[in-house]
Amino acid sequence: MTTDEERIRRSFTMQAFMSTLRAELTSVVQGGVEIRLPFLPDLTQQNGYLHAGAITAVLDSACGYAALTLAADDKEVLTVELKMNLLAPAAGEVFAVRAQVKRAGRTLTVCTADAFAISDGKRDSGCNHAGNHHGCAGKPAK
Amino acid sequence: MTTDEERIRRSFTMQAFMSTLRAELTSVVQGGVEIRLPFLPDLTQQNGYLHAGAITAVLDSACGYAALTLAADDKEVLTVELKMNLLAPAAGEVFAVRAQVKRAGRTLTVCTADAFAISDGKRDSGCNHAGNHHGCAGKPAK
Amino acid sequence: MTTDEERIRRSFTMQAFMSTLRAELTSVVQGGVEIRLPFLPDLTQQNGYLHAGAITAVLDSACGYAALTLAADDKEVLTVELKMNLLAPAAGEVFAVRAQVKRAGRTLTVCTADAFAISDGKRDSGCNHAGNHHGCAGKPAK
Amino acid sequence: MTTDEERIRRSFTMQAFMSTLRAELTSVVQGGVEIRLPFLPDLTQQNGYLHAGAITAVLDSACGYAALTLAADDKEVLTVELKMNLLAPAAGEVFAVRAQVKRAGRTLTVCTADAFAISDGKRDSGCNHAGNHHGCAGKPAK
Repeated sequence: MTTDEERIRRSFTMQAFMSTLRAELTSVVQGGVEIRLPFLPDLTQQNGYLHAGAITAVLDSACGYAALTLAADDKEVLTVELKMNLLAPAAGEVFAVRAQVKRAGRTLTVCTADAFAISDGKRDSGCNHAGNHHGCAGKPAK
Repeated sequence: MTTDEERIRRSFTMQAFMSTLRAELTSVVQGGVEIRLPFLPDLTQQNGYLHAGAITAVLDSACGYAALTLAADDKEVLTVELKMNLLAPAAGEVFAVRAQVKRAGRTLTVCTADAFAISDGKRDSGCNHAGNHHGCAGKPAK
Repeated sequence: MTTDEERIRRSFTMQAFMSTLRAELTSVVQGGVEIRLPFLPDLTQQNGYLHAGAITAVLDSACGYAALTLAADDKEVLTVELKMNLLAPAAGEVFAVRAQVKRAGRTLTVCTADAFAISDGKRDSGCNHAGNHHGCAGKPAK
Repeated sequence: MTTDEERIRRSFTMQAFMSTLRAELTSVVQGGVEIRLPFLPDLTQQNGYLHAGAITAVLDSACGYAALTLAADDKEVLTVELKMNLLAPAAGEVFAVRAQVKRAGRTLTVCTADAFAISDGKRDSGCNHAGNHHGCAGKPAK
């Protein structure tokens, strides 16, 4: 594990909310991360689908950590805005959220992320895209 | 309690994720709702602030229920997109999220919401606005 | 006219695109501006309504100048992101766009704006809200 | 030219605002279009860059026509919301805007678009991405 990956993983462990969601950080590369979120009954909305807020929270963390992979060692990342399009109801056993940096700037970093459902170990094709998240701008703290 | 309020409260009770967040539906009027979210350690990010995803989830539910107050009895509401601006770090004991309908349409309803922190029973002035959520469009299910 | 208003008006005059749209800066106050855009055939889309892009451009300038009213004298404002909800087809003789600062920050300023149609000198009620623009974040240049 | 392409090109010709911007529809394929916008002094903001509103207008039309390539013959497309991230100042001779459908739905279609500058006939690498547009949702008219 590189120093960068260690730093990301250490920070992720400190996000108590990710643990409340039982989200796992499954991949860290330069400019991108993957987080997985299990489908669990206590994360659902009134129709039994995953609550949009649960998947949005994971997309937000994923974008933040993607930005952090490219930030200087003494910097932190805070979300200043996020935009989420919900493309289809989120049905599946596990959701994989993949975020990547679109542009890394001095004060703002723009990331995009996609979420999709995984069933039986395979990426579901068709209508299972759970979301599509854009514009998570990270602002390095001083 | 009116039939409408009953319907909203019943649906809210069925959102298991709101219960996981320990959010409470504190007000329902025609075209608007208020939900409160306590500051709790298991909802935080790495710096000890409320995770943006937790407050976004509440804003999303608040917008959805604001839209539902104006929807026909046989309709449901699903979020199709949301936009969140995080105006300042969310510090406080309790967060109140107030959503209202901006425009109720036949297929799309646009809502806005604001979140602010409450300490010692008073709305904090100054920098404590936790968020500002726009464009939660609800699409009535068939 | 205050120095601030002069500065805004001078900058507006230099936005050649506003002149191409025949937009007029009709009001400047601390934290807010109004710009008016006439309905003109060369600003329309294929159905004869005002093109969403024309009104979005005006909303963007309006948000930028609202932010500039609160910026230090040696700063400029650049849009980093914008979000627009189109609430109803834009029909009217003139469109008034009112922008105001939601939060002025050190590096980011968040503004909101509304557009509405004016006919016979009166604000149209009902379906004529042309738009609803959020999150135009200005970033002071150095 | 296919019937679909003819339909798109005919509609584009009727968008008077695209002609005011001197935008050209340079490519139409199933699920995607390209529009080019020249850098012209009357499309600029106060610093001499292309006005964000001009490029946003083109991104909006591009997303709309991308959606229209997948719409039924008796349907039209109207933008209901758009989100734009401005990644860098738009400097170049010509801007190419490429839009594609992310998800085509029964009532909503979600598209994304990117804009980039072209100089000397080549795509500029580096900082010239002019924009990044998301969530232009088209709603077929009845």
